[in-house]
Amino acid sequence: MKTIDEYRIEIETAIRNLKLPEGKLDNLYNPIRYALSAGGKRIRPVLTLMAADAFGQKAPEAVMPAVGLETFHNFTLLHDDVMDKSEMRRGRLTVHKKFNENTAILSGDTMLTLASQYVSQVPDNLLRVVIDAFNEMAINVYEGQQLDMDFEQQSQIALTDYIEMIQKKTGALLGTCTMIGALIGGASEKDAQKMYEFGLQTGVAFQIQDDWLDTFGDYTTFGKSIGGDINNGKKTYLYVAAFEQDSQTAKALREAYEIPAGDVRVKTVTRIYEKLGINEATKKAVNHYSSLALKALNSTSLDDEKKEVFRKLAEKLIGRKK
Amino acid sequence: MKTIDEYRIEIETAIRNLKLPEGKLDNLYNPIRYALSAGGKRIRPVLTLMAADAFGQKAPEAVMPAVGLETFHNFTLLHDDVMDKSEMRRGRLTVHKKFNENTAILSGDTMLTLASQYVSQVPDNLLRVVIDAFNEMAINVYEGQQLDMDFEQQSQIALTDYIEMIQKKTGALLGTCTMIGALIGGASEKDAQKMYEFGLQTGVAFQIQDDWLDTFGDYTTFGKSIGGDINNGKKTYLYVAAFEQDSQTAKALREAYEIPAGDVRVKTVTRIYEKLGINEATKKAVNHYSSLALKALNSTSLDDEKKEVFRKLAEKLIGRKK
Repeated sequence: MKTIDEYRIEIETAIRNLKLPEGKLDNLYNPIRYALSAGGKRIRPVLTLMAADAFGQKAPEAVMPAVGLETFHNFTLLHDDVMDKSEMRRGRLTVHKKFNENTAILSGDTMLTLASQYVSQVPDNLLRVVIDAFNEMAINVYEGQQLDMDFEQQSQIALTDYIEMIQKKTGALLGTCTMIGALIGGASEKDAQKMYEFGLQTGVAFQIQDDWLDTFGDYTTFGKSIGGDINNGKKTYLYVAAFEQDSQTAKALREAYEIPAGDVRVKTVTRIYEKLGINEATKKAVNHYSSLALKALNSTSLDDEKKEVFRKLAEKLIGRKK
Repeated sequence: MKTIDEYRIEIETAIRNLKLPEGKLDNLYNPIRYALSAGGKRIRPVLTLMAADAFGQKAPEAVMPAVGLETFHNFTLLHDDVMDKSEMRRGRLTVHKKFNENTAILSGDTMLTLASQYVSQVPDNLLRVVIDAFNEMAINVYEGQQLDMDFEQQSQIALTDYIEMIQKKTGALLGTCTMIGALIGGASEKDAQKMYEFGLQTGVAFQIQDDWLDTFGDYTTFGKSIGGDINNGKKTYLYVAAFEQDSQTAKALREAYEIPAGDVRVKTVTRIYEKLGINEATKKAVNHYSSLALKALNSTSLDDEKKEVFRKLAEKLIGRKK
């Protein structure tokens, strides 16, 4: 197996070499080129290549499906940015800000179909299972996004519903990336399913950690300003867990969220979290889902050396400082 | 083969019986139920069932793929309505007006993936060709929509570019509907390709006829108000054909379009069209593309009786009064 950086470079190269039409249709394809060139860690397609290599040294065959999964991810970011009216993404203007909203909608649609085209570049005997997994994952992601939007309108959310939401919105794609890679590598159906579980639970742990970092992270290494979620009234793992405690806590939290966005609100909410032990409880949840991921990984037929590579990647992802 | 109405009822029944999640995810799926229940002629999925029956009495096997193609069509209408800021569709509020814009974007995305799921319900030996045809068609539709939006900003458009746009935006889907139906029916690759051509050219003729009706149609039977395209400054076949004539015509037309929207503008532009013989030239173009469609149909291996059924449907579609 290669290093994570080597896999990432393979993905970057494949994305740069995509043959998207030029000229007359630039208004449709330039926003796609822009969205796909934004970089980032490319963690999803890297997972696909890693899994394909781990199970059968088939990374080259997995490159186009991996690019498809990354294209899908970028399509969801593009449409999410329109829905959230976000102006910046990865230090650059979002697509609907740089171009316009109609372009963002139509180029996003195009990216979803391109993703499907790239993902379907697998041997015939895998086509059905890969296409089905891809479509089912996509449905999960939309449902997760809808639940996330619904939560914004609700004050009380069950922790199990929150976990379901991040499983769909974040976990399903990571799980599908590892699973499709494993299938291309020649993994058994059972191993492919375990690798899905590994990706899924890693995604859940990652998302909870992301929530934690936004409140308890270290600004200098996290890179985003601390308390953004609190100021935006976002329903995070911390918020949901705190709200579940008792009616008095819920009341205090509701009042804290009535303070205008700013340092005072962030400090007040953070103090409530600390008093309730949410800081520790959240870290415990991250560990819980990480251990579910590792349990799934350990139950595959991969040898220890290969398991170690995935374990390290998951640690790097979840324990990430920025 | 059954009657068009019988096929339409089969499609309506299948759409009504779709098992979309209910309850928690209503905010995502209610707009989809709303969009899919709007009715209409269901001409696209009817073509798929007809072709499946004509080539192999396989309409039942074609129902889900046909529903997928109709779902795709409705997804494009939904996103187009967001982009055009249209308020009404088929006598009802558009999805983004009845619900909201974010809902329309996300439910539309979901419909595209549902379409892909339904279309992929074909025997394994057809999966690759059907999925590839579906994705290629979808890309054509987005490209056609982009060209259509681009044309709004251009005063001079080549007639060949206009034809390319409607081939992509309207023709490709109709062609894919007949082709996929034919493939499910067991048609040879050659026959399937001819049926694609039949659907494609029928779609082009239909679109040009639609442009003609908007200016020269009979209000009482057309059902839409005459001159809508002229008042909206839409680049129709008539406009593009007139503009191609000479610089004097182009100047007169440009001036006519500077008249504020209303009866005077409509009458002035219509008079220019009439003077140039655009009325007749457009009818000739409709006949030209209709005859290309029939030529393709006639060159298939279908027996005369079956050809007659498709010929009648095309006539009904193109010669439609509303």
